[in-house]
Amino acid sequence: MPLIIPVDSDFSIHNLPFGVFSLGEGEKRIGIAVGEHIFDLTHAVEKGWFSNISKETVQTGSLNALIGQGKEITGNIRKTIQSAVKNGTDLSAYLLLQSDVRMHLPVKVGDYTDFYSSEEHAKNVGKLYRDPENALMPNWKHLPVAYHGRSSSIIVSGTSVKRPSGQIKTTEMERPVFGPTRALDFELETGFIIGKNNSMGSPVSTSEASEYIFGMVLLNDWSARDIQKWEYVPLGPFLGKNFATSISPWVVTYEALQPFNVAGPIQQPKVLPYLEFEGDKNIDINLQVNINGTTVSRSNFKYMYWNMEQQVAHHTINGCPLRIGDLMGSGTISGKDENALGSLLEMTHGGKKHVELDDGSQRKFLEDGDEVVISGFCEKEGIRVGFGEVRGQII
Amino acid sequence: MPLIIPVDSDFSIHNLPFGVFSLGEGEKRIGIAVGEHIFDLTHAVEKGWFSNISKETVQTGSLNALIGQGKEITGNIRKTIQSAVKNGTDLSAYLLLQSDVRMHLPVKVGDYTDFYSSEEHAKNVGKLYRDPENALMPNWKHLPVAYHGRSSSIIVSGTSVKRPSGQIKTTEMERPVFGPTRALDFELETGFIIGKNNSMGSPVSTSEASEYIFGMVLLNDWSARDIQKWEYVPLGPFLGKNFATSISPWVVTYEALQPFNVAGPIQQPKVLPYLEFEGDKNIDINLQVNINGTTVSRSNFKYMYWNMEQQVAHHTINGCPLRIGDLMGSGTISGKDENALGSLLEMTHGGKKHVELDDGSQRKFLEDGDEVVISGFCEKEGIRVGFGEVRGQII
Repeated sequence: MPLIIPVDSDFSIHNLPFGVFSLGEGEKRIGIAVGEHIFDLTHAVEKGWFSNISKETVQTGSLNALIGQGKEITGNIRKTIQSAVKNGTDLSAYLLLQSDVRMHLPVKVGDYTDFYSSEEHAKNVGKLYRDPENALMPNWKHLPVAYHGRSSSIIVSGTSVKRPSGQIKTTEMERPVFGPTRALDFELETGFIIGKNNSMGSPVSTSEASEYIFGMVLLNDWSARDIQKWEYVPLGPFLGKNFATSISPWVVTYEALQPFNVAGPIQQPKVLPYLEFEGDKNIDINLQVNINGTTVSRSNFKYMYWNMEQQVAHHTINGCPLRIGDLMGSGTISGKDENALGSLLEMTHGGKKHVELDDGSQRKFLEDGDEVVISGFCEKEGIRVGFGEVRGQII
Repeated sequence: MPLIIPVDSDFSIHNLPFGVFSLGEGEKRIGIAVGEHIFDLTHAVEKGWFSNISKETVQTGSLNALIGQGKEITGNIRKTIQSAVKNGTDLSAYLLLQSDVRMHLPVKVGDYTDFYSSEEHAKNVGKLYRDPENALMPNWKHLPVAYHGRSSSIIVSGTSVKRPSGQIKTTEMERPVFGPTRALDFELETGFIIGKNNSMGSPVSTSEASEYIFGMVLLNDWSARDIQKWEYVPLGPFLGKNFATSISPWVVTYEALQPFNVAGPIQQPKVLPYLEFEGDKNIDINLQVNINGTTVSRSNFKYMYWNMEQQVAHHTINGCPLRIGDLMGSGTISGKDENALGSLLEMTHGGKKHVELDDGSQRKFLEDGDEVVISGFCEKEGIRVGFGEVRGQII
């Protein structure tokens, strides 16, 4: 079987992202996406490929142990497959069609942190939830604000999301009421997976941070805005967020994304020394959100104010230990343009306006049955490196 | 060897808490505290005791798999040991001295949630950080406010805590500065360990909650007040907390604490139906904080406004899945009395006053070398069930 990779595939030989799949209810195996196929890495290691990787490493049902082998090992896997495809090696014994398998969460997530690193999103939400005149909090331009999310409710693309219930109190109500959320929203985010442990008490600098970033996924941070608004003072979002967080199944490596680095926004006021960095650290990733097939947003990861290296340095500056498999969300990614907003909250100005779908229906927030699909890709000089999608339907 | 349990021991035969220990750097084993001894459960199972428990269950280095067997199994272990001690059975082949072993984290914590359920603490902090006239937020009496903490920095009693650095900005400063925290504090808390998984999307009611609460520990939620104050708006505490959270090594079972149940405060306004509960659900646990040997606080878990059953019901009302081993902190436990405050922040009115130690020295916040010890026990009609202590020194 000659391996043909469609020219518009997210999974070109420049990409080769890692994931976890199974055939139906079978055992979970590690795979590498190649075009419309999966290279079955677990099978290859079992057959004697990559003598420096033990069979146990690829038989745990998650990427954590493999990632823990280090970037030299995972980088060598990508190079070997790249060469094999380029040289026309017959890989048919190790290839499956992506359409034939079931994808799983790629990693066992220890801790999940969600940042808040898009200036436009922070301003838009600040205007709606707090003071329109002082939308950004005084700390926002000095540090990448973040909070801890819940790892137990992280789900893989394709998993349905049950509309959560909770306490709701609008300004008109005298007391809170209990019921299903009336303001269910998505949040367009990316996430990165930690690839190396730091010791407790040992900060990681911005220049070391790349060693700790294994790769990226797309992330939908589902949010119940009415539950969130009532509960979040003074300790932050809790039940308004922790009912579900969806991620895409393929982890695109940090290295595969380097060709798409671009300069980020100028950070003014000047950041403290531990947040200074060198080089272009933003990444030009085209992002798109569809609701029931209608594109409602086109944003880009390059808009982020704070980059991933700064997020790692900030997260560890107090000695906090990061562990392999931890997930770091970017925060909602909004651009300046009206068509580049990362949540319905922003698009509808908190439910005051409608978003029109192609079937003529309107949305303030998500309705039961709605399916949200976030997709993303980089493209430059004919080279495409993409993420596939993260998909979820409200039930 | 006849087993003599000192009358004032926290670990009476009414208690029999579960923990994880090792002999030096040896393998981690599961033990039950009995007076000054440990009953080596792993050894007992390996020797054929408890035929309904597999050896693998007690050889994983944490309690999670054993807890997962259910309360009937873990309750039967306690009953069996209780009978053996009462009957004078020779247990010497299975007993070690606690002073001879090293204790470890009892569970592998998936997610760590910290509540904020003491009315006095919430009021005291609200006065200092926000508006003295409206110290309690409007939501506080309607729901048990909580946020997600970090599980990777949970450490067992005895582990030293490195003073964290971070961004600090007092009101007088024009811009933030970077440096070691000048306001390092403890927080007197308890925590409970989840003993049963709920399915994603399936809330747990207050009446079912006891099945999900395996047992309790003491918890010190170390806090860097200056870092916290600058970073925490709008998404809650992050680096001001996630550098370290200490817990005591012995998990006292929910069942061992039932004789000490007492009525909690009357909840007014009336809570929503999903937070209603029956019976006395607060627990009379005497709590004490020592700094370098000086007792600086005597508080009690019975002061809590929200009980654990309500916390479980609230946490899952949106369908959030809890997993065996998850840790739920109570929030700082303060009483009305000036001598019953659970943090230096409250005792010193935010650093405006001093706390006097027995050696004549004074503290606004913790200094390097200071050792904080939290201890706790229940006592009623001559029966004592205690927690031991959670200890940590600042380095």
